[in-house]
Amino acid sequence: MSLPAITLTTDFGTRDPYVAAMKGVLTARAPGANILDLSHEIGAHDLVEAALFVAAAVPYFPAGTIHVVVIDPGVGTARRGLAARVAEQYLVAPDNGVLSLLFDQHPPAEVRETTRWEPPGEDVAPTFHGRDVFAPVAAALASGTSIVDIGPPVTDPVRLELPAPGWSDGRWAARVIHVDRFGNAVTNLHRASVDPAAIIEVRAGGRALGRVARTYGDVAPGEPVVLFGSAGYLEVAVNQGRADRELGIGRGSEVEVMLRDD
Amino acid sequence: MSLPAITLTTDFGTRDPYVAAMKGVLTARAPGANILDLSHEIGAHDLVEAALFVAAAVPYFPAGTIHVVVIDPGVGTARRGLAARVAEQYLVAPDNGVLSLLFDQHPPAEVRETTRWEPPGEDVAPTFHGRDVFAPVAAALASGTSIVDIGPPVTDPVRLELPAPGWSDGRWAARVIHVDRFGNAVTNLHRASVDPAAIIEVRAGGRALGRVARTYGDVAPGEPVVLFGSAGYLEVAVNQGRADRELGIGRGSEVEVMLRDD
Amino acid sequence: MSLPAITLTTDFGTRDPYVAAMKGVLTARAPGANILDLSHEIGAHDLVEAALFVAAAVPYFPAGTIHVVVIDPGVGTARRGLAARVAEQYLVAPDNGVLSLLFDQHPPAEVRETTRWEPPGEDVAPTFHGRDVFAPVAAALASGTSIVDIGPPVTDPVRLELPAPGWSDGRWAARVIHVDRFGNAVTNLHRASVDPAAIIEVRAGGRALGRVARTYGDVAPGEPVVLFGSAGYLEVAVNQGRADRELGIGRGSEVEVMLRDD
Repeated sequence: MSLPAITLTTDFGTRDPYVAAMKGVLTARAPGANILDLSHEIGAHDLVEAALFVAAAVPYFPAGTIHVVVIDPGVGTARRGLAARVAEQYLVAPDNGVLSLLFDQHPPAEVRETTRWEPPGEDVAPTFHGRDVFAPVAAALASGTSIVDIGPPVTDPVRLELPAPGWSDGRWAARVIHVDRFGNAVTNLHRASVDPAAIIEVRAGGRALGRVARTYGDVAPGEPVVLFGSAGYLEVAVNQGRADRELGIGRGSEVEVMLRDD
Repeated sequence: MSLPAITLTTDFGTRDPYVAAMKGVLTARAPGANILDLSHEIGAHDLVEAALFVAAAVPYFPAGTIHVVVIDPGVGTARRGLAARVAEQYLVAPDNGVLSLLFDQHPPAEVRETTRWEPPGEDVAPTFHGRDVFAPVAAALASGTSIVDIGPPVTDPVRLELPAPGWSDGRWAARVIHVDRFGNAVTNLHRASVDPAAIIEVRAGGRALGRVARTYGDVAPGEPVVLFGSAGYLEVAVNQGRADRELGIGRGSEVEVMLRDD
Repeated sequence: MSLPAITLTTDFGTRDPYVAAMKGVLTARAPGANILDLSHEIGAHDLVEAALFVAAAVPYFPAGTIHVVVIDPGVGTARRGLAARVAEQYLVAPDNGVLSLLFDQHPPAEVRETTRWEPPGEDVAPTFHGRDVFAPVAAALASGTSIVDIGPPVTDPVRLELPAPGWSDGRWAARVIHVDRFGNAVTNLHRASVDPAAIIEVRAGGRALGRVARTYGDVAPGEPVVLFGSAGYLEVAVNQGRADRELGIGRGSEVEVMLRDD
């Protein structure tokens, strides 16, 4: 019987020894666990980016997986640490909203505070709970500790409020919530809210971009294209180019979505 | 009996959740497999860079390894998906030439199309076959599915044509095909084509660089040096410096190699 | 009984196939070993950064772990290769000081030269001992080879001399030795040398920064803060900002630490 996978998502980068120290703690306390890097390149202190990442990635993992998420600008302050169970997976993270977009889609079956793992004093660095609290909690869960033994229940985890797309006069006013490595601009308009076939025009960066296509290569290289991306959100792209640069759009930019009259 | 290793090579970066989603699928479908990151920093849509990477890395892995390679500008179009067997290893990738430099050196024993894993409809995102086709195919191979069950045979995988070094008048006209992290300029002239001892002069960036050395430290720090690199290709470097900047050369630059009269 | 973990720390980046080739060799020669990336983003040829990284990360790993460290500007020259045992862990690296800060804190029980693994000739590339010497040595140790069979003993490994903080007239003159991803400036003044409560003023970048705090969030966002970081060194930071930019400091900058008269 192999140990479950433990994944790591941080804003630490890998040039500094922070991620390495966490891997050391996990290797020492949960020998044989399969440690998987999800990302260490989340923008520094960027809770929104991290929360979107977690909500997009976690659902693909199997039951039993343990996810350690350390984007933690408030480390060492009164902010709580959390361990949560969601769809038979576990998450360990600071209570700053970084799990909340996942929780919106998959309400947690259990949320506990990590207080029992934060003894005051020299053993816990007030600047690095990733190493001294969250990795030990993850190792404990991987080794069979029940989540109810992690700490007292939490009923009000911190929530992030993302802007929702606005609706009026037969159009959605969506917002770019993420620009990916390819320069694709992902918006907050999900396919669940709109019938793609009803969209007659999308506008972004002052340009009319036409209807929704299926994939990038439906247009010529260098041409803009609008589609619903692999996570279900409306996305503005340029085939083999960068939509952010070519259309002058970025996080927060408005994307207008016109629907046909029905 | 442990499962084989599954490696990942993409141009996704790790700031976005794409690689994480693929790891989730692999963890769910091939539990216990050893997932190894090779690179997620291949230049966006850079098939030549990816093909060189695959040809350089794969031969060091043992029989049974499964390599997933997702540099896929044509995702969701009519381009095929491939599963191939090469020297008892497996590769899963789009059919866009990204495996072809490896195939030139190690002809595949078997190439199959991944059609059976691309059912039309909502389960396969037309923009992310890495997650919805290639990772599932890799997991199937890791779990014992025979490659002949992946799909119909392919006899004409797409090939990339790299420029070959030119030969005339006692000199090779080589080309820089890759600049590495250190600024070393790797050319297309392989040691198999030329006796290093016969080289009397190498020129690049308008400068005469002398004969071939053994290693970087054969010259003083800051000095240019020419050698055959660890993959067997002629390389122009600067000891503890960057040849690309100091000689003003980059991908596509010509490197002249003068041979002695024999 | 699972094989021990093998960690990798290099300055190779992951865009080039160098790390991938090392993983291939390790997978082929130590099948089943758990390969963990610590960093491939160490500054190119930066022995000081690498030595600090190794000293900060290795102590968190359990007995039996094997660490391969390849920051190797002198590859292929007369510089030696080393295998060392430290606190029941193993390190494999070039003899250029990259292990010496760890050795200062944890004197090695055994240091051996890797000469038996460096046969002259075509099998060992003079430019890539990471692949052809250090990875094979690590795989051998992982597979049960005794360190005494790696090569002859070494009694004088190369040492790096880091600047020590200066003391005079009731003040420490510390130096910034590392700036991390967040812009935090880590100095060479360790908590073992000074009572935090005795510090009445810290100055850096021409500014008076006050006393030592506990964590970043003890000051308002955007304000500078001084604390002892998670590795025990005095650190100048800006809460949710970048101390390097906002205070104009970097590696080598002086940080003054005034103590109360006692």
